Amino acid sequence: MNKNVFRNLSYGVYVVSTLDGSRNTGCTANSIMQITSSPATIAVSMNHDNYTNSCIQASGRFAVSILSELSAPSLIGQFGFQSGKDTDKFEGIDFTMKEGLPILNDCCGYIICKVINKMETSTHTVFLGEVTDGDTLGSAPAMTYAYYHNVVKGKSPKNAPTYIAEEDISAKDPTKDVTASKWVCGVCGYVYEGETPFEQLPDTYTCPVCRQSKTKFVQK
Amino acid sequence: MNKNVFRNLSYGVYVVSTLDGSRNTGCTANSIMQITSSPATIAVSMNHDNYTNSCIQASGRFAVSILSELSAPSLIGQFGFQSGKDTDKFEGIDFTMKEGLPILNDCCGYIICKVINKMETSTHTVFLGEVTDGDTLGSAPAMTYAYYHNVVKGKSPKNAPTYIAEEDISAKDPTKDVTASKWVCGVCGYVYEGETPFEQLPDTYTCPVCRQSKTKFVQK
Repeated sequence: MNKNVFRNLSYGVYVVSTLDGSRNTGCTANSIMQITSSPATIAVSMNHDNYTNSCIQASGRFAVSILSELSAPSLIGQFGFQSGKDTDKFEGIDFTMKEGLPILNDCCGYIICKVINKMETSTHTVFLGEVTDGDTLGSAPAMTYAYYHNVVKGKSPKNAPTYIAEEDISAKDPTKDVTASKWVCGVCGYVYEGETPFEQLPDTYTCPVCRQSKTKFVQK
Repeated sequence: MNKNVFRNLSYGVYVVSTLDGSRNTGCTANSIMQITSSPATIAVSMNHDNYTNSCIQASGRFAVSILSELSAPSLIGQFGFQSGKDTDKFEGIDFTMKEGLPILNDCCGYIICKVINKMETSTHTVFLGEVTDGDTLGSAPAMTYAYYHNVVKGKSPKNAPTYIAEEDISAKDPTKDVTASKWVCGVCGYVYEGETPFEQLPDTYTCPVCRQSKTKFVQK
């Protein structure tokens, strides 16, 4: 079996939110799909080790904020690279409460669900949620997982060169050495490709995806 | 609730194949996602009314062929706009048997599964399949549902104008009247946008998506 084939399955990028008692929490997710249209239900796959899983089990409710191509990449990091058990995931986040659940304002739509069934697997729970409310927000296209990897991650502060585009630039400008080592965020894998040499960035620089400090970057 | 929000969920485009006794059958699907990585499992949502559903229930096995942006659009129609109960879905299709299941050759990867669990809903079955084999085929990017709607459906025989691109052309060339009525396939919704007036196409013309005859087109 060639596990690379799983990269050819297509997904969106979402923040699944729920309640930990009266506290808002949530996490980044990709595995979400509509199951039925009338009544509308969606399925969400969530790892057992994810704190959000136990909170959905307890509250019986969850909401999905659908990230768009214009959503701040830092949302993915804030909700995806730390645990809601220890941190307030919604600290500094612009959100609105809908039916008692937090919805990100910086997204292109939301769906609110109550859990009506679930299927347990070896490592994940598949929650089946009946949709109680939902709406689109703005007109930006939804962010796909492929877009996140190909465009967001490859984007430098001033431009958005993908790896291939960078090769094109190199071909036109032989002074650019694309084989030079790169600074990579050790937490989320973001590759720094800005024009300012990484060493000259201020100490206050943080990863644009997961907000970790400059000290978390490693040279590869 | 604004049901348009469901259009912001992202999917791929797949052909799910299985066996009807010793006969190959299958259907087009979008709702597929990986659930666990080790052991690898994927979930597929399938309508109760779909003939493929009953065949998966009986055989306990299914395969997924992942369509790429270069896959023939007619595959979507052949597997999506007719029932396998009455027709041989694989007639004229280039395929290879893997572990006893048919895999399309014109795709970017395949996944073979045995059903290990399922969750019934009001109208659909969510099959949980343990992956027994899988591989990538070629390097073309996977087709997303958004790509199918925005690019494939809007593509004319010579160009690939989306609705927005067509507006741009209109702005540059005032002789083009984008408000003119269009010929639309009554089966799959494909909009004809070729340069040859629809009425002048030969009677042998068929819809490039679902292969229905010219007579199935209606003017809208």
